[in-house]
Amino acid sequence: MYKLIKKDGKARRGEFTTVHGTVQTPAFMNVATAGAIKGGISSYDLKNLKCQVELCNTYHLHLRPGDTLIREMGGLHRFIGWAGPILTDSGGFQVFSLAQLRKIKEEGVTFQSHIDGRKIFMGPEESMRIQSNLGSTIAMAFDECVENPAPYEYSKKSCDRTERWLYRCKDEMTRLNALHDTINPNQMLFGINQGCVYEDLRVQHMESIVKLDLDGYAIGGLAVGEPAVDMYRIISTVEPYMPADKPRYLMGVGTPVNIIEAVSRGVDLFDCVMPSRNARHGHMFTFNGIVNIINAKYTNDERPIAEDCDCPVCKNHSRAYIRHLFKANEMLGMRLAVMHNLYFYNTLMERIREAIEEGTFEQFKERYVPILDKRCKD
Amino acid sequence: MYKLIKKDGKARRGEFTTVHGTVQTPAFMNVATAGAIKGGISSYDLKNLKCQVELCNTYHLHLRPGDTLIREMGGLHRFIGWAGPILTDSGGFQVFSLAQLRKIKEEGVTFQSHIDGRKIFMGPEESMRIQSNLGSTIAMAFDECVENPAPYEYSKKSCDRTERWLYRCKDEMTRLNALHDTINPNQMLFGINQGCVYEDLRVQHMESIVKLDLDGYAIGGLAVGEPAVDMYRIISTVEPYMPADKPRYLMGVGTPVNIIEAVSRGVDLFDCVMPSRNARHGHMFTFNGIVNIINAKYTNDERPIAEDCDCPVCKNHSRAYIRHLFKANEMLGMRLAVMHNLYFYNTLMERIREAIEEGTFEQFKERYVPILDKRCKD
Ligand SMILES: [Zn+2]
Ligand SMILES: [Zn+2]
Repeated sequence: MYKLIKKDGKARRGEFTTVHGTVQTPAFMNVATAGAIKGGISSYDLKNLKCQVELCNTYHLHLRPGDTLIREMGGLHRFIGWAGPILTDSGGFQVFSLAQLRKIKEEGVTFQSHIDGRKIFMGPEESMRIQSNLGSTIAMAFDECVENPAPYEYSKKSCDRTERWLYRCKDEMTRLNALHDTINPNQMLFGINQGCVYEDLRVQHMESIVKLDLDGYAIGGLAVGEPAVDMYRIISTVEPYMPADKPRYLMGVGTPVNIIEAVSRGVDLFDCVMPSRNARHGHMFTFNGIVNIINAKYTNDERPIAEDCDCPVCKNHSRAYIRHLFKANEMLGMRLAVMHNLYFYNTLMERIREAIEEGTFEQFKERYVPILDKRCKD
Repeated sequence: MYKLIKKDGKARRGEFTTVHGTVQTPAFMNVATAGAIKGGISSYDLKNLKCQVELCNTYHLHLRPGDTLIREMGGLHRFIGWAGPILTDSGGFQVFSLAQLRKIKEEGVTFQSHIDGRKIFMGPEESMRIQSNLGSTIAMAFDECVENPAPYEYSKKSCDRTERWLYRCKDEMTRLNALHDTINPNQMLFGINQGCVYEDLRVQHMESIVKLDLDGYAIGGLAVGEPAVDMYRIISTVEPYMPADKPRYLMGVGTPVNIIEAVSRGVDLFDCVMPSRNARHGHMFTFNGIVNIINAKYTNDERPIAEDCDCPVCKNHSRAYIRHLFKANEMLGMRLAVMHNLYFYNTLMERIREAIEEGTFEQFKERYVPILDKRCKD
């Protein structure tokens, strides 16, 4: 259940209540692809990093260790040791980006596992069953992720199919949630808006999926290589058609600036591998811009990554030490960098929420948009 | 300063006081080669793993990031964030095992860095200067590590040179500790006994180095491939010649059984990469034997690695989850495995100390020697 607390422009400060706890929005979901954050971070570490929601990948967990095993182990929450909300994606995005030899039909998609080449079929019902076995808090609808750019006609047909798939997802989830031995009988379903960069398709599709009165709505198929202005334009176009009393989730986004821009257009939830992936290359986010820790100027820098950061890394370790760990290929370097970056993202969201509460989000945006994606000067 | 608290047979329960804290012996030193434990473990993690002493490698730190940088950063303790005792090895072992194109002369050894091929000279004075820059609690003397087996005549000559080097080490450390701006003016020096597997050489060499009245004595050149019985025989042979009021350190040893056997022969200190290296291959130590977590029988095992283990891993994670992390190549798997194994080693030492205090060490040995190196049955 989503409760709007305060609006500042289009930016929304809300509370999203789930059976696994309440999420203060806007929020960033921390990506634990195969049930663990890349860089050696556990669910117990996340508790000290201000994480509110973990996001796990249905495709990866279905292939390994298998959703039936996770069900046998009591569900994903118990398996990975995280009591808070977990969102699982539908597997669709990975099927369309990672898997080989895809064949799309009305029933669903046949593809080969990228791990062992095994042939697998996944349609709306299969995706829902897997996510029900995982017992996540929020399941995502199974959709087709078309390439970007895609021809208008193909995008339209795909939107129609994604809509038909959504009805099947909802029916199957209703059935699964009602089973006596289901892991999470309160599992929620979010629908996903598609339509490539075509405004009319996006609006039509949003209007049609809103009719299903789902628990939340996502904007999918963006942040896949198109210019940021196109992404912002699509968000602004579809946002008025999204129900005000449901959380809005922009999938796979993004940089700190992308997030601020999307919040200013009415988005509540985000996820992205950027904080962990960039950390693994030594790129650290700070409120003064990006610190590339490999840079020689940090060789003897005794300061923490960010002097205003309260994360467990900045409280204890110097730039000089973390740089040394990266140069020496010590796994600890990656771990510390990922921890700081996740803490930064989760703190960014906290500051965004505070700014909206105080009615100063516009100033916040003006102050940080020019800084956050640039290189830190000191 | 070493204080003997209790003897049980030859096993010694002692307290070794240093300027960075008191070590309860027998103790296992946790190996942080380049200033970090392999597997993404920080000094702050070690505090929760019952670690008493960190061991860092002079050779690695000299090459990267450089001991002068670490000195500039306030010394190793501050650089890596560990306030307790740190022992640094002399670099000798790595020079003789990792470096290329070594040339040994009376002055010292010329070798090429295994990282960039750079030509480096290291003799007793250089090793002491590097360790002084690092500011470790205990510095190890610079010795020649002869191959095993080595001819008797070569071993004898090498012992003589290592003895001459030891006098130079002591003189140089005395000079360095007296400098007004030295990092740790109370740095201790341990001498290293050599002599391959020749009992008379071992005894002669020990008798000669004891004359220097150093802060502790190590047995080096063992656990390099010789049968365990040879190692035990050498320990038993030289132990009577080691001063009773100084800590005794068996370098690079070993398996849990090796450690118990060596404690029963009067050894106080140990170090080994085994707990972290084996962990990285999924081999976990428990008091019921070795758990190979990759084994298929753990696929759906909800129990912790060891049911009687209080480590942060066993308190939170199942075998099934950790096995999944290994199969999915998630870095978190290694981290959890290394944490458990270090906790096991440090707990093993704790139990050894308790058994000596209670006068039940012989029973402890009889109970655990047949189990610990075998595969866990359940
Ligand atoms: Zn930080
Ligand atoms: Zn444990």
